[in-house]
Amino acid sequence: MIAVETFVHILDLVGTFVFAISGAVAAVNRRLDIFGILVLSFVAGNFGGITRDLLIGAVPPAALIDGRYLMVSVLAGLITFFWYAGVDKLRSPVLLFDAAGLSLFAVSGAQKAIDFGLNPLTAALLGMLTGIGGGMMRDVLLAEIPQVLRSDLYAVAALAGGSIVVLGDMLRLPYSFTALSGAALCFGLRFMAIRHGWHLPVVRLSAQQRAEPDSSDDQGSL
Amino acid sequence: MIAVETFVHILDLVGTFVFAISGAVAAVNRRLDIFGILVLSFVAGNFGGITRDLLIGAVPPAALIDGRYLMVSVLAGLITFFWYAGVDKLRSPVLLFDAAGLSLFAVSGAQKAIDFGLNPLTAALLGMLTGIGGGMMRDVLLAEIPQVLRSDLYAVAALAGGSIVVLGDMLRLPYSFTALSGAALCFGLRFMAIRHGWHLPVVRLSAQQRAEPDSSDDQGSL
Amino acid sequence: MIAVETFVHILDLVGTFVFAISGAVAAVNRRLDIFGILVLSFVAGNFGGITRDLLIGAVPPAALIDGRYLMVSVLAGLITFFWYAGVDKLRSPVLLFDAAGLSLFAVSGAQKAIDFGLNPLTAALLGMLTGIGGGMMRDVLLAEIPQVLRSDLYAVAALAGGSIVVLGDMLRLPYSFTALSGAALCFGLRFMAIRHGWHLPVVRLSAQQRAEPDSSDDQGSL
Repeated sequence: MIAVETFVHILDLVGTFVFAISGAVAAVNRRLDIFGILVLSFVAGNFGGITRDLLIGAVPPAALIDGRYLMVSVLAGLITFFWYAGVDKLRSPVLLFDAAGLSLFAVSGAQKAIDFGLNPLTAALLGMLTGIGGGMMRDVLLAEIPQVLRSDLYAVAALAGGSIVVLGDMLRLPYSFTALSGAALCFGLRFMAIRHGWHLPVVRLSAQQRAEPDSSDDQGSL
Repeated sequence: MIAVETFVHILDLVGTFVFAISGAVAAVNRRLDIFGILVLSFVAGNFGGITRDLLIGAVPPAALIDGRYLMVSVLAGLITFFWYAGVDKLRSPVLLFDAAGLSLFAVSGAQKAIDFGLNPLTAALLGMLTGIGGGMMRDVLLAEIPQVLRSDLYAVAALAGGSIVVLGDMLRLPYSFTALSGAALCFGLRFMAIRHGWHLPVVRLSAQQRAEPDSSDDQGSL
Repeated sequence: MIAVETFVHILDLVGTFVFAISGAVAAVNRRLDIFGILVLSFVAGNFGGITRDLLIGAVPPAALIDGRYLMVSVLAGLITFFWYAGVDKLRSPVLLFDAAGLSLFAVSGAQKAIDFGLNPLTAALLGMLTGIGGGMMRDVLLAEIPQVLRSDLYAVAALAGGSIVVLGDMLRLPYSFTALSGAALCFGLRFMAIRHGWHLPVVRLSAQQRAEPDSSDDQGSL
């Protein structure tokens, strides 16, 4: 049990770091100053886990009482601040960082929900939330529609990863095996979406609306 | 007491469904894929209730541990996905769906807050929050100023509905009666706002600013 | 101990009032109606404290069970509604109101976190969150990138103020002294940033990107 907890903890910290990188890069792109970059790093790296902890009643959340989450986030922010070379060069690695963070969080988030006695369906959903929460809040703070809701196979990849962990727990398979399988499935789905354009269907709109697909942001909603 | 709880529960599920429809429609308008539509459905249908449960200490929130909230939300998302015909045709029914969801949530949210022992003022406010929370987060995730803060008599209608429930509880009137009265008052206020332009006052700005009322969104704030 | 709690409570109410003013002014600028103005007043005045209370497990949050927070917020909203003369004239005082609210919340938020037994680092961070949370949510609801992440020395000033309180607590200095010192430091930093342009460094982007500094908002992120 100690081993599983340690493993979950390490996954959590690595996931925090890679998500914090994505938050820092987004903050640099928006010209936030060094402190704004650090705030975005922390938010992107920890908001999903903090929300999960609030929802399962684990307060204060681990990301606040365990200083390592803060240190890892600040480290990611500082590395981005000093090492940042150009927006364009980073697009591709940031997407992969993001996919790795998503995979790790989906897996560790689902396991923590199981540890707190939540039912399998909720545990899988909380794994997904842990994975997408940080990226959602990162984009909300930048006044953008969250990438996690637009990118192909993003939230669904996180849900798939978390579901593997939940299934493995129900079948009493060793956690290290199901965690790696779940993370690999999630990362693989995102990778195929990024590299090969895998995507889910959207609603077919009328010909007139289809004629101007790039102007969808300008349409008033509701 | 069982009867009241069952009634509250049914109201909650119906409200979840109609709000989830509004979330799904907004997601389709923004060209989110099927999974993004389901996420928006769940958020619009359940965020208000989840926030209320967090604030009153009812964790994990009912929307997470009771699978029916998820099922109802997914059902609404799927119906919207497959049945969606045209944005324009849906504007009017979506507003009515929205008003119905608002009414049901304001009433059931206030009752749940009373059940958890909160004082009358807070209970009425939490009823309002339950009603407007899902729609607020739906619009925040779409990077828009929440409709619930702009639409005439929206939040105030929810507050009126919740207040009726609170008043009825203080007067020991039967819940089924006060719930229906509160929901009817809330729905009626919204209906009059939608159909007959009832609205609350805004601050009168200078002549120059009044001359360009439609460009208010472009003004920098603060 | 009673004295300290009373002092914290008064600080909290004063901070709530000045932040609520900033929320109401932003709502007026966006042409929200009177109820929308009151909602923004309450959010700007109380969201930081509510989030802090959720994170430390103090539910229901003080801002909901103590009616004075609501009254103070509503009062600020009504004053703004009836007294609002012109957007331009208010820019400067709003910034000072904002700085005062930030200082008071950073100090009282850190103290409350200490009272709930959180470690010093977390307490200082929760002081910062208490200070910047309301303004962040105010701007998120208006679909803007939060000022607190863009304004020079904003979040860092709140962190400095909270840190003074935490340090004073570790050194067992009287709270009234450290609270005033922390608030003064926070306010002073913000004042220097507003009046004299003190700021933190940003990442240096390429010459091409520097050539169009005002169009940064139009750049796609990630």
